[in-house]
Amino acid sequence: MIKVGIVGGTGYTGVELLRLLAQHPEAHVEVITSRSEEGMRVPDMYPNLRGHYDDLAFSVPDVGRLGACDVVFFATPHGVAHSLAGELLATGTRIIDLSADFRLRDADEWSKWYGQAHGAPDLLDQAVYGLPEVNRDAIRQARLIAVPGCYPTATQLGLIPLLEAGLADTSTLIADCKSGVSGAGRGASVGSLLGESSESMKAYTVTGHRHLPEIRQGLQLAAKGPVGLTFVPHLTPMIRGIHATLYATVKDRSVDLQNLFSERYANEPFVDVLPKGSHPETRSVRGSNMCRIAVHRPQDGDLVVVLSVIDNLVKGASGQAVQNMNIALGLEETLGLAHPALMP
Amino acid sequence: MIKVGIVGGTGYTGVELLRLLAQHPEAHVEVITSRSEEGMRVPDMYPNLRGHYDDLAFSVPDVGRLGACDVVFFATPHGVAHSLAGELLATGTRIIDLSADFRLRDADEWSKWYGQAHGAPDLLDQAVYGLPEVNRDAIRQARLIAVPGCYPTATQLGLIPLLEAGLADTSTLIADCKSGVSGAGRGASVGSLLGESSESMKAYTVTGHRHLPEIRQGLQLAAKGPVGLTFVPHLTPMIRGIHATLYATVKDRSVDLQNLFSERYANEPFVDVLPKGSHPETRSVRGSNMCRIAVHRPQDGDLVVVLSVIDNLVKGASGQAVQNMNIALGLEETLGLAHPALMP
Amino acid sequence: MIKVGIVGGTGYTGVELLRLLAQHPEAHVEVITSRSEEGMRVPDMYPNLRGHYDDLAFSVPDVGRLGACDVVFFATPHGVAHSLAGELLATGTRIIDLSADFRLRDADEWSKWYGQAHGAPDLLDQAVYGLPEVNRDAIRQARLIAVPGCYPTATQLGLIPLLEAGLADTSTLIADCKSGVSGAGRGASVGSLLGESSESMKAYTVTGHRHLPEIRQGLQLAAKGPVGLTFVPHLTPMIRGIHATLYATVKDRSVDLQNLFSERYANEPFVDVLPKGSHPETRSVRGSNMCRIAVHRPQDGDLVVVLSVIDNLVKGASGQAVQNMNIALGLEETLGLAHPALMP
Amino acid sequence: MIKVGIVGGTGYTGVELLRLLAQHPEAHVEVITSRSEEGMRVPDMYPNLRGHYDDLAFSVPDVGRLGACDVVFFATPHGVAHSLAGELLATGTRIIDLSADFRLRDADEWSKWYGQAHGAPDLLDQAVYGLPEVNRDAIRQARLIAVPGCYPTATQLGLIPLLEAGLADTSTLIADCKSGVSGAGRGASVGSLLGESSESMKAYTVTGHRHLPEIRQGLQLAAKGPVGLTFVPHLTPMIRGIHATLYATVKDRSVDLQNLFSERYANEPFVDVLPKGSHPETRSVRGSNMCRIAVHRPQDGDLVVVLSVIDNLVKGASGQAVQNMNIALGLEETLGLAHPALMP
Repeated sequence: MIKVGIVGGTGYTGVELLRLLAQHPEAHVEVITSRSEEGMRVPDMYPNLRGHYDDLAFSVPDVGRLGACDVVFFATPHGVAHSLAGELLATGTRIIDLSADFRLRDADEWSKWYGQAHGAPDLLDQAVYGLPEVNRDAIRQARLIAVPGCYPTATQLGLIPLLEAGLADTSTLIADCKSGVSGAGRGASVGSLLGESSESMKAYTVTGHRHLPEIRQGLQLAAKGPVGLTFVPHLTPMIRGIHATLYATVKDRSVDLQNLFSERYANEPFVDVLPKGSHPETRSVRGSNMCRIAVHRPQDGDLVVVLSVIDNLVKGASGQAVQNMNIALGLEETLGLAHPALMP
Repeated sequence: MIKVGIVGGTGYTGVELLRLLAQHPEAHVEVITSRSEEGMRVPDMYPNLRGHYDDLAFSVPDVGRLGACDVVFFATPHGVAHSLAGELLATGTRIIDLSADFRLRDADEWSKWYGQAHGAPDLLDQAVYGLPEVNRDAIRQARLIAVPGCYPTATQLGLIPLLEAGLADTSTLIADCKSGVSGAGRGASVGSLLGESSESMKAYTVTGHRHLPEIRQGLQLAAKGPVGLTFVPHLTPMIRGIHATLYATVKDRSVDLQNLFSERYANEPFVDVLPKGSHPETRSVRGSNMCRIAVHRPQDGDLVVVLSVIDNLVKGASGQAVQNMNIALGLEETLGLAHPALMP
Repeated sequence: MIKVGIVGGTGYTGVELLRLLAQHPEAHVEVITSRSEEGMRVPDMYPNLRGHYDDLAFSVPDVGRLGACDVVFFATPHGVAHSLAGELLATGTRIIDLSADFRLRDADEWSKWYGQAHGAPDLLDQAVYGLPEVNRDAIRQARLIAVPGCYPTATQLGLIPLLEAGLADTSTLIADCKSGVSGAGRGASVGSLLGESSESMKAYTVTGHRHLPEIRQGLQLAAKGPVGLTFVPHLTPMIRGIHATLYATVKDRSVDLQNLFSERYANEPFVDVLPKGSHPETRSVRGSNMCRIAVHRPQDGDLVVVLSVIDNLVKGASGQAVQNMNIALGLEETLGLAHPALMP
Repeated sequence: MIKVGIVGGTGYTGVELLRLLAQHPEAHVEVITSRSEEGMRVPDMYPNLRGHYDDLAFSVPDVGRLGACDVVFFATPHGVAHSLAGELLATGTRIIDLSADFRLRDADEWSKWYGQAHGAPDLLDQAVYGLPEVNRDAIRQARLIAVPGCYPTATQLGLIPLLEAGLADTSTLIADCKSGVSGAGRGASVGSLLGESSESMKAYTVTGHRHLPEIRQGLQLAAKGPVGLTFVPHLTPMIRGIHATLYATVKDRSVDLQNLFSERYANEPFVDVLPKGSHPETRSVRGSNMCRIAVHRPQDGDLVVVLSVIDNLVKGASGQAVQNMNIALGLEETLGLAHPALMP
């Protein structure tokens, strides 16, 4: 049984980790930390977990107890993993960080977007970007894994087949993304009230969202060169789900895109390329770790439209974190993640 | 491996059976029937099941193929099980009927509420009402199981502790129930359009809903006598969930209701009595087979208010059907049903 | 043109007042106060009002400016009107208070439910409870009007025909009420996040909600005697709307209830008694000041079920406030309130 | 008083016309037709209209009665206006057609997209495209007005300032549009059930939506030349609202876009250009005839992102129809349309 620690388990990615790990046959959560909720039993905060974690209570972070785990997940705001990772890695445990702390390879770029100094630039060398469809081998060896963000996961999986094949004009990529409100987290905020965000749709941070540099970094690695990306996120009146609508101009209309995508992901357990002409719905992945993708070239023109959907809390966060754990610990990659989506 | 057949798998209870059985380690769906969708592959209708039932296609009902299964679920409109059950039971298979066909013990009562003659009154003797919390022993021996309706499940589980203890005035019971729209099924109807049923709440069939006689029958068995019940169902703007708010006048204020409920359900894997003062949310059981219950006596008066929530498609239909299968086939009762609810 | 002041205009009842007054041909908002948003222009907070109040900005409350208005609305948390009302009434203006400050006639009862001393018990004598269907004559003369709460409005309008007629057993009244989340206000709270309250239903404060004494007070006046009431509010996943499902035992089955309700409200512009057998939907009153009511006696028994729906922000708050203003100032009662509900 | 006729009043655009005309001081609905609902009183179908149209019932279309009206709205499926318009225009009345029948100037193009022969090509010469912000003068003289579609309205208003100024690369325009489900109409269909379309987001008809040629036609007129447009509509889990996210590459970065848009719409009563940096929400126009627009140039690049929101049933259909009526009949353009949006 794998011993699991979770730092910062009171938010949505925390409870989602607990939900997924409750179904995982090889993992056992030993420690879960929260400064604000110290002493509270997990099921008292999350009634859906009653009967699953009845003996688990939130505790103050303790490097000794966390270090005794085989793997420690960070489900914390940015900055926290920076401050704890070094000490924790020294104990020999693995870290799977769901925050943004180790996603960007460039500490200065990180500082610019997150408005504070990077707290652990010396660890960047060993940090592995945890997108299995790109980095599986590196993940196997990794001690410090940066789980990709939700928008970056949906967008990269939708665009990298085109970029790796050198097929897209890399200067004019567009990612028009729609996210459910759980992406904004469980913090109390007026904008996320049902009374404010239900029955409405809006774009936000058109000027520049923090996921922009992360997406760009990933796309540039796939394209092996600079990439011009416009990223417009939208708040959608639903709880879970990301729908990425991706636009790229292709240089060669003769390529069979359906085939390109199908082959790229033929062996990927969590990427499902839909039949030609399909339109994936976010509900088809609700609660599951799948990414479903369809590729279109409307009116046989130059512009490719890729539709890519994930559950932002699963493949976009906690599910992908468990997938990384499975890979890093040598388990079967789909362990605990094979259940179908909840539909309707 | 248990061989499973499903008759009528295109509706919400059908897809939910498939979702749950995909997680069941001992069951394999051999046959699924639909006259209207003959030949269509299951994942082509339900994209959430892509990767799970890729070789399964809807076929026309065939008693030979169904009879070769260990158990056959009916997820059909009322009347269908009447017409097929006799022939099918003769093959030696078990039937677990999610429709209303065998829930009422009185064929005339059935005819009155369903507006047609009862099609198999001779089978009523062997039909077992599949509420495990009441009928577990009978279910073990049953060849023909009538899975309770969604409102009846939430309401009976909330009221029977009071009735079995002889504590309630049985003449004035009230069940004010709120259901998500999936309870109305997957058929195209104007009233269930998002444009009609979202952002709104309404009662319906106050005059008399078909679940009324079923609930009353169950309550009378618990009370060992006649019961006066008023049942008001409401359509709630959500997909899944039933919230039953139950009112009963107690004859004796001195009884510790919290204790009564806790003890009644102490050994029940799928009934969770919440701590005193709780208010269960339907989302705390979304996608799970749990029923969560809280009991209140406001202002220390005579009136008891029981709050009982289930997922109408799971404990209120397909999950309870699988629970019955587990019991009837001698498997562990929670097999395939132990995952936590999806929250948020 | 009537000069209007609004104290505390940043919440939902504030913006709703502004929306309704923008359509009112005889009213002009001169002052709107907010300490926290001083200086902000109204349309900068509420983009739906762009083009309507472009010259109006929030200011710090000032008795001089408010006193120069013909009428001052309070759309504030409880306690605020207590502290300002006396001084303001002395200027000669009228006060229409949407908060709970002057709804209960008994200062001690108020203190008990609101957890603080009553701040203006000396004003209670002149406070008029602003339910026009009961108190129209008193409202005409009133200088200080306490606008009823949302649950109290829907519940009282649904039950008083029975109580005034002496037809109901007053000891066992039940109000099972379902409210949209805007009833919880615009304050940031985890429980009102879309991620927490969408796709779910729950009861709350079953032990005792602050509207209970207000409802009871109104029902007792109608019944001319003590009333036993159980009130269970529920949070419903929608923005606006209250659906009150009301249960009362009648002493005389021979009375024509449909006729009783129709006659009681025959001359009421904002109470609509639906035809026999109807089920009002909350969306049928969305954005409008109507209350729609249907009355049932299921299975011809003793128990009457009244269904009463309002928009909690209109007839349950700001619309009723404007209705009170029209009456108190001698205008046509429906002025600015005659538009149909928004449906779909 | 203007005499109004409505052909086909049972759908969402029909009830919305009735809602808006109930608030219109100069219009009176004399006739409303429906073959399927002949004889039904309007408020019996639409309870929000009780008290407003109590004497109006649906009747079978009759050219004589319709011809006696000053203006006749068509709120019908495509093809109906083709068959009735000629005869009706001969009576001297005006037609305002909310369907697609007269939107495309090229009958062959219409036939291609709508899959049937154009039924009234001889009337195309006199048909005026009813986008007041472009065609106001022509609308003043028109006898036959084709009200723009919902997507076309939001998209054209967002892009024409750029095109009229010759500022955009016309070969690579993208319209990524999100619509509430009321856009799909009130017909019973599985895909529009709350159980299917709530809590989910999907694109549809990426290959080619019927509004594509209409949008392209309008953009080409503004650009005075051919236009390459990719249009991807999405189904959003809300009732009302369209959010168009529009992408265009500008040829000249030095132009002040904020100024360009503000000046273009300075005198338009129903187009509101938001301050720089804004993100319009669809709820800010719910129930109102406003279009709110924000223009961004992220990271000071070449790509302009225009955000344009409307209520699909108001500015995208019935409100714009009334606006056209006001213009065509010489009334004040905002009559009956000046109320603020419903928010929250």
